[in-house]
Amino acid sequence: MTVRQLSLPALINACLRQGVPAVGLWREPVLSYGLVAAATLVRNAGLTVTSLCRGGFLTAEDSGLRARALDDNRAAVDEAAALGTDTLILVSGGLPAGSRDLAGARERIADALAVLAPYAGERGVRLAVEPLHPMFAADRCVVSTLAQALALVERFSATEVGVAVDTYHVWWDETAPAAVARAGAAGRIHAFQLADWTTPLPAGVLNGRGQLGDGSIDLRAWRRRVDDAGYRGPIEVELFNEDLWARDGETVLAETVERFTTHAW
Amino acid sequence: MTVRQLSLPALINACLRQGVPAVGLWREPVLSYGLVAAATLVRNAGLTVTSLCRGGFLTAEDSGLRARALDDNRAAVDEAAALGTDTLILVSGGLPAGSRDLAGARERIADALAVLAPYAGERGVRLAVEPLHPMFAADRCVVSTLAQALALVERFSATEVGVAVDTYHVWWDETAPAAVARAGAAGRIHAFQLADWTTPLPAGVLNGRGQLGDGSIDLRAWRRRVDDAGYRGPIEVELFNEDLWARDGETVLAETVERFTTHAW
Repeated sequence: MTVRQLSLPALINACLRQGVPAVGLWREPVLSYGLVAAATLVRNAGLTVTSLCRGGFLTAEDSGLRARALDDNRAAVDEAAALGTDTLILVSGGLPAGSRDLAGARERIADALAVLAPYAGERGVRLAVEPLHPMFAADRCVVSTLAQALALVERFSATEVGVAVDTYHVWWDETAPAAVARAGAAGRIHAFQLADWTTPLPAGVLNGRGQLGDGSIDLRAWRRRVDDAGYRGPIEVELFNEDLWARDGETVLAETVERFTTHAW
Repeated sequence: MTVRQLSLPALINACLRQGVPAVGLWREPVLSYGLVAAATLVRNAGLTVTSLCRGGFLTAEDSGLRARALDDNRAAVDEAAALGTDTLILVSGGLPAGSRDLAGARERIADALAVLAPYAGERGVRLAVEPLHPMFAADRCVVSTLAQALALVERFSATEVGVAVDTYHVWWDETAPAAVARAGAAGRIHAFQLADWTTPLPAGVLNGRGQLGDGSIDLRAWRRRVDDAGYRGPIEVELFNEDLWARDGETVLAETVERFTTHAW
C-alpha cells in the first residue's frame, strides 16, 4: 500500500531491485490481478508475503451483514493461505450506523473471532487484530489500544489469534510498551508495522501517514521494544500518503528502504 | 467558543434570553473586549463564568520559552480570578519542534504545575488539566487520556489541580469511566464538557466537533458517570465547528440548549 501506484509485477520487480525480500499485500490488488497468478508471481520471484491486509469489519448487528462479514473473512483466510502467508491482518470495524455502543461492538468482534480462529488455524493462517488509532474508533475500528486488542485476543489460542502492532496507531499510548512486552511474551505479536506521525492531518485523516523519519515517533525505540519482546518476524512499512502515491513508485520504495535503515535499524 | 460568532455582549444577551445561567469564556475575546469590562458585563448580567480557557502549553524545552509560558499562565490565572471563575482549563502542549520524547514533555508539564499550582491556589483558582484526544498528542497536548491526566494531577493538592473531562476527548477510552470515578472520589473533576464525535474529520481535525446528538458518543451515559462520581459543577458545551460558526449565533445557542436537554439531561 505504501507504493500502491505500482502494479503487482512492477512492485515485485522494484522489491527485487531494491533488495526488499518480503512484501505485505492487500486483497484488492491481489484479487484484481488474480489470486493464483499473484501467488505464482511472488513465489517465482523468490519473495515472501509477510501478511495479507485485510479482513475484519466484524461489528455489524444485523445477522445478514454478520454472515456476509464472516464469509468475507473466510475468503480472506483462503487468499492468505493461497499466497503462502501465515498472517491475515484484521481491522475490526467501527460502530454500526446510529449505534453508540462501543462495548457491544467490541463483544461482537470476539464472537466473530470465535468462529474465524479455528477456520484460520486449520489453514495455517494466524489472525492479527490491529488496534487502530482512537481517531478511527467511530468509523473504522472500535479496538483502539494495544491493551484492548490483547484483552480481546487472549481469549483465543496464540497460534491462531494475535495482534498487529503499528507504530502509527500506538505511539502516543504510554501503556502500549507494557502491552508489547506482554504480547511478545505470549507469542501474540503476529505483525509489526512502521509509519510515522505527521501533522496537520488531512481531511478524513486516513491518508496522512508520514514517511519514516518525517514525524514525531521514535521508531527506533519501538523497534527495540518489539525486538525486546521477542518478535523475530518481518517488519512492514505501511504508509497511506497521497504525496507518496503521487511520486514514482520505485523512487518511493528506495527512499523508504533508506529511511528504514536510518530510523529503524 | 461554541458560538464564537457572537460578540461578548451579544453572547451575554443570548444566554439571558435562552435561559443559560453560566458561560465558559476564552481568553482572547475577553482580552480584546477588555478584562475589567468583560467581568463587569457578565457580573451585571447575573451570569456565572464557569471556566476560563485556556492556559497551558507547558512543554517547551528552551528556558526562555518556559519562562514565557509560566508568565502567560500566571496572567491567565489572574484573568480567571478577575472574571470570578474558580477554574482555569489547561491544554498541556504538544511535542517541541523536532522532539520525539513524549515522556519528557509530560514531565515538564509536572514541573510547570509545581510552579503554577500554588500561584493559582493563592488566587482561588483551580487548574484543570484537560486530556486531549490522542490525535492531538504531537502538536497540541501530550496528555492523551484521563488516566494520564489524573496520574499527573495527583502529585498536587486537589483544591489546586484537577482534570477537565471532555466527552470528545475521552469517549473512545474504555479505561476512562474508572478514571472518572477515581477523579470524582478525589474531588478532582474541575470541569465537565460535552461535545459529540462526528466523521469524517475535517483537515487539521480541530474544528470538527459534532453538535450534541449528531455523533457517536453516548452523552447521557457520560453525564451519568460524572454525576455518579460526585461531580456537581457546571456542564459546558464546547463545540469547535465551522458549520455552527457560519450560522446565526443565537439560533445555534438555542439549538444547543435543546440538544443538551434531549441528549444529556
